[in-house]
Amino acid sequence: MKKIGIIMGSDSDLPIVEKGIKELESLEVPFEVHVYSAHRTPEEAIAFAKGARAKGFGVLICAAGMAAHLAGVIAANTTLPVIGIPCSAANLQGLDALLATVMMPSGIPVATVAINGAANAALLAVEMLAVGDDELAEKLEEKRLEAKDKVLQKDKAISDKYNH
Amino acid sequence: MKKIGIIMGSDSDLPIVEKGIKELESLEVPFEVHVYSAHRTPEEAIAFAKGARAKGFGVLICAAGMAAHLAGVIAANTTLPVIGIPCSAANLQGLDALLATVMMPSGIPVATVAINGAANAALLAVEMLAVGDDELAEKLEEKRLEAKDKVLQKDKAISDKYNH
Amino acid sequence: MKKIGIIMGSDSDLPIVEKGIKELESLEVPFEVHVYSAHRTPEEAIAFAKGARAKGFGVLICAAGMAAHLAGVIAANTTLPVIGIPCSAANLQGLDALLATVMMPSGIPVATVAINGAANAALLAVEMLAVGDDELAEKLEEKRLEAKDKVLQKDKAISDKYNH
Amino acid sequence: MKKIGIIMGSDSDLPIVEKGIKELESLEVPFEVHVYSAHRTPEEAIAFAKGARAKGFGVLICAAGMAAHLAGVIAANTTLPVIGIPCSAANLQGLDALLATVMMPSGIPVATVAINGAANAALLAVEMLAVGDDELAEKLEEKRLEAKDKVLQKDKAISDKYNH
Amino acid sequence: MKKIGIIMGSDSDLPIVEKGIKELESLEVPFEVHVYSAHRTPEEAIAFAKGARAKGFGVLICAAGMAAHLAGVIAANTTLPVIGIPCSAANLQGLDALLATVMMPSGIPVATVAINGAANAALLAVEMLAVGDDELAEKLEEKRLEAKDKVLQKDKAISDKYNH
Amino acid sequence: MKKIGIIMGSDSDLPIVEKGIKELESLEVPFEVHVYSAHRTPEEAIAFAKGARAKGFGVLICAAGMAAHLAGVIAANTTLPVIGIPCSAANLQGLDALLATVMMPSGIPVATVAINGAANAALLAVEMLAVGDDELAEKLEEKRLEAKDKVLQKDKAISDKYNH
Amino acid sequence: MKKIGIIMGSDSDLPIVEKGIKELESLEVPFEVHVYSAHRTPEEAIAFAKGARAKGFGVLICAAGMAAHLAGVIAANTTLPVIGIPCSAANLQGLDALLATVMMPSGIPVATVAINGAANAALLAVEMLAVGDDELAEKLEEKRLEAKDKVLQKDKAISDKYNH
Amino acid sequence: MKKIGIIMGSDSDLPIVEKGIKELESLEVPFEVHVYSAHRTPEEAIAFAKGARAKGFGVLICAAGMAAHLAGVIAANTTLPVIGIPCSAANLQGLDALLATVMMPSGIPVATVAINGAANAALLAVEMLAVGDDELAEKLEEKRLEAKDKVLQKDKAISDKYNH
Repeated sequence: MKKIGIIMGSDSDLPIVEKGIKELESLEVPFEVHVYSAHRTPEEAIAFAKGARAKGFGVLICAAGMAAHLAGVIAANTTLPVIGIPCSAANLQGLDALLATVMMPSGIPVATVAINGAANAALLAVEMLAVGDDELAEKLEEKRLEAKDKVLQKDKAISDKYNH
Repeated sequence: MKKIGIIMGSDSDLPIVEKGIKELESLEVPFEVHVYSAHRTPEEAIAFAKGARAKGFGVLICAAGMAAHLAGVIAANTTLPVIGIPCSAANLQGLDALLATVMMPSGIPVATVAINGAANAALLAVEMLAVGDDELAEKLEEKRLEAKDKVLQKDKAISDKYNH
Repeated sequence: MKKIGIIMGSDSDLPIVEKGIKELESLEVPFEVHVYSAHRTPEEAIAFAKGARAKGFGVLICAAGMAAHLAGVIAANTTLPVIGIPCSAANLQGLDALLATVMMPSGIPVATVAINGAANAALLAVEMLAVGDDELAEKLEEKRLEAKDKVLQKDKAISDKYNH
Repeated sequence: MKKIGIIMGSDSDLPIVEKGIKELESLEVPFEVHVYSAHRTPEEAIAFAKGARAKGFGVLICAAGMAAHLAGVIAANTTLPVIGIPCSAANLQGLDALLATVMMPSGIPVATVAINGAANAALLAVEMLAVGDDELAEKLEEKRLEAKDKVLQKDKAISDKYNH
Repeated sequence: MKKIGIIMGSDSDLPIVEKGIKELESLEVPFEVHVYSAHRTPEEAIAFAKGARAKGFGVLICAAGMAAHLAGVIAANTTLPVIGIPCSAANLQGLDALLATVMMPSGIPVATVAINGAANAALLAVEMLAVGDDELAEKLEEKRLEAKDKVLQKDKAISDKYNH
Repeated sequence: MKKIGIIMGSDSDLPIVEKGIKELESLEVPFEVHVYSAHRTPEEAIAFAKGARAKGFGVLICAAGMAAHLAGVIAANTTLPVIGIPCSAANLQGLDALLATVMMPSGIPVATVAINGAANAALLAVEMLAVGDDELAEKLEEKRLEAKDKVLQKDKAISDKYNH
Repeated sequence: MKKIGIIMGSDSDLPIVEKGIKELESLEVPFEVHVYSAHRTPEEAIAFAKGARAKGFGVLICAAGMAAHLAGVIAANTTLPVIGIPCSAANLQGLDALLATVMMPSGIPVATVAINGAANAALLAVEMLAVGDDELAEKLEEKRLEAKDKVLQKDKAISDKYNH
Repeated sequence: MKKIGIIMGSDSDLPIVEKGIKELESLEVPFEVHVYSAHRTPEEAIAFAKGARAKGFGVLICAAGMAAHLAGVIAANTTLPVIGIPCSAANLQGLDALLATVMMPSGIPVATVAINGAANAALLAVEMLAVGDDELAEKLEEKRLEAKDKVLQKDKAISDKYNH
């Protein structure tokens, strides 16, 4: 199976990114995590992007805040699908990172998820790997069923409390 | 090769979506186009999503404006990767569609591209199909090289005009 | 009397929704509360919406945050009036949920109240039931008078403190 | 049948409001249209609101732009359900009117629709009247089916063009 | 001297309004404080506005949050200058109240100050009274000089700390 | 009678400002118009502000766009009431000018009107002069009555068309 | 004298950038213009940034729209001061480019000017070169005086028209 | 070496500004710190700006919040490069200060950094001084290398934890 690469622009983004790591672990999808900054280590970031396909990566996930250029820089140096997680920082609640991640010009797409949406970034990456992998697709279906069951249990609990 | 499904919420989104269709045609990737509204034809939209994997689709692209629910509704009914194109409508310049598409809650990701970013949605879809298809990846690389050449030609033209 | 149906997309919205429940209890209007997610339990949500009129519901209230699709999905499957409560989540202060709830395309209206405005959602639902029910309208009038009296008492307290 | 009252803050809002009038005419629901400004004719606006229930109105629709106070002023003077249409004006694309209409404080709800969403305001008003009127509900269902058919025809046209 | 009238839409706005009261007390300008809601006590609010000039008021200050209609409703019922203080509430940081207060349509102006800017509202009101009152203008000048001296003292303190 | 001073930051703001000039002319209030830029002619702007009270000005109106500092600079150099008109420029629809005008720090108030709200700025200025001038207040009342009549005529026209 | 480097992300930004070129020409400051895209020609962009100081550049100006990463990418690869011009594109009026340009994380500053503010970018670049160049500083002073004179002439024209 | 002047509009901005002071101290660049308010001490602020070049300043940094006019007022009175730090205040998260600082009209540029971006303001000022000072440029390069090393160490730590 292809690996998923997770890059965060700063290790201060780790608490956000960890929600995605947990999803990958629970789905038993192989991954690698790195800290590369688009601005402080541009060469390492670019080298990682350029070499990713050859090293067996299938999807790259990039998490960054403020004027979040990381996903764009990575996407400019690979034709692997790149997922961007806009991280909220001290001001503007992540709106800056969202626009800096999603409003990519034609030619270099970034698949953007919600502000701080690391769990969904991970699930989206797995969905991409599962396009040609029915077993993995099956696991995703099961996860959906579990999520559904949880909602139905909560509905039951709230129904028991309020509806008679 | 897997097909790419393109769904627009209204045929008024066709001028936007056509830029994506052109990309797919130039890359010779098979696709199918549909008009299904999350609100006016919810059953058809859901049925399409549920049956998509079995029918040979690999990625679904959804274009919608305003309170754009289409990508979310489709994503809730398939584990195929779903790409959302927020379309600008008369007011708010697509900010409403962007937030309604990208801010998905945990469990149901939508890979969101820029407002009206149909060309990038198509390229992103092809990138997903190319994860395990080196020939298709090669085509994407060539497209990148062409885009690079175009920029360098423009740089030459402007250099000739201004720099002596 | 018709019942009011309250649906929340996640039980984490309950603290917001409870302010609406309290209003309905104080007005002695029958209601039912459910947790159905537009994305995790789309079938249950749709089935509830489709069956609501036949089961004696008169109005449906939907509370959801982020890319809040719940009210739109419910509204797409019933011609009962649907009230949407945009809930504030961790980022963007509910602006995302507000736009995702209120900017509905033509044909499928959602009656949107303020961010986290569950009390008003409940009162609005009762106003709808009271269109043809003078006794219930009377109760609403009394509530208004009580609210008015409270303001006048506060005015008196502040007048006593500051105006001599 | 109860009448629907439509009030616009200025006759410059008529082109927006007319889309709602057309819906009411096509559904054969009785209505009355007025121009009352919350700021220039506050007394007439308030008098209309106070007398509306007695005069046979069931729902009031208010359209106003900028710091749109009309719906709030009307809602403060009746317990009939009040629907607000935020109208876009020269600047800010209707965001000002949207927030001024929807962010009502507890006690005085306004059922807000999309910016310039007059057609949906009309349909929402009819949905309210149809809560206890099965014949009217039936008409709304038919309208939904027509809208659905239109989408399916467009899907067919686009399928014929692109999918072979 | 004319009195300044201060009206707040809810007594929860008192902590904000008190900063303005303090300015008026320090400048020894007579004032009166009231709690009148545009929505819960529209009649009292309107009656106050209509009678204000005759009762010796020279300027009215209105503080309200969310869809802040108070200043507009008061301004619609008097030709005294009306100052609006947009108050921040739980969500949207007062942007809703700012737009609902400042974007008044032609004919009914509201002199809007910063979000929660009660001190400036008070100073602005005194500036209005001081147009024809040189003694009061002198007091305002002194206040400015005091503020200037405070800044210069702080500059000295910081200069002593950093600049050698 | 005191004069009203109108300053615009650039003569490109004249089409906006002219709506205010017309109001002053129709109310026969004396005024003077100037072009002074806070940034290009700071000395002239400051000198005008400092000398304004002595020269018989009662209120100053400042119109500027983008990072609109003019009203703040003028207000910092006079204790006359200063009204700010945020002008819309090519981008951001005047939101930049609105925030740069209204969000003044404590001590230096600017009475802000709507984006491009020159007519209201003029009326507000006259309201300030009318605080102690019953004849002028009377003229303002008449203007209100005319505006009211216009609305009622429009209501009649629309009633004749739609309500039978 | 050091040269100023101007880079635009796309030749579609040339109409904006030309306003800056004109300023440089009128001040007789040497410059070079290039088209390099952060995403389509990342290597050329980076190579240019890395070599700029050695090639005699003193300041770099970068113009880009949407998720504008160009200035950040250039700034990450040089310690020359980098000025960013956020360009407005079809949607969001340049707010996306502004935030993507100005909200740079600690360590890699970008000197951001107004949306489409190419003239100011050029002037700012010249101000930087003029820090140690009194003759150039003198030219900037003269430009200021011309701008001042123009405003004063406009003031005279408007004074002649309105003030008698 | 030229000195850097730091001006803050209020000493409440000192905690933000201190991050910039620390950068200047670590780079051993001479600087001076002042508190001058554009509104409360306009004369002192202007006098400082006018005299700055003669007193050996090379760059001026201005920090202010809300309707942040300080940088603009300083820039209007010097042709030294002026850097603006928009400071976040109680509401709107610094968006007001950002727009009031960056959206300067043609002729008077302000080099704007991120909201609360004092460290970057200091680095940008040093970059300007280093245009013609290779030793200082060298120091900036070293700082970049240190920052790069820190990222690489963090990458190693996270790699050790997650990648085996």
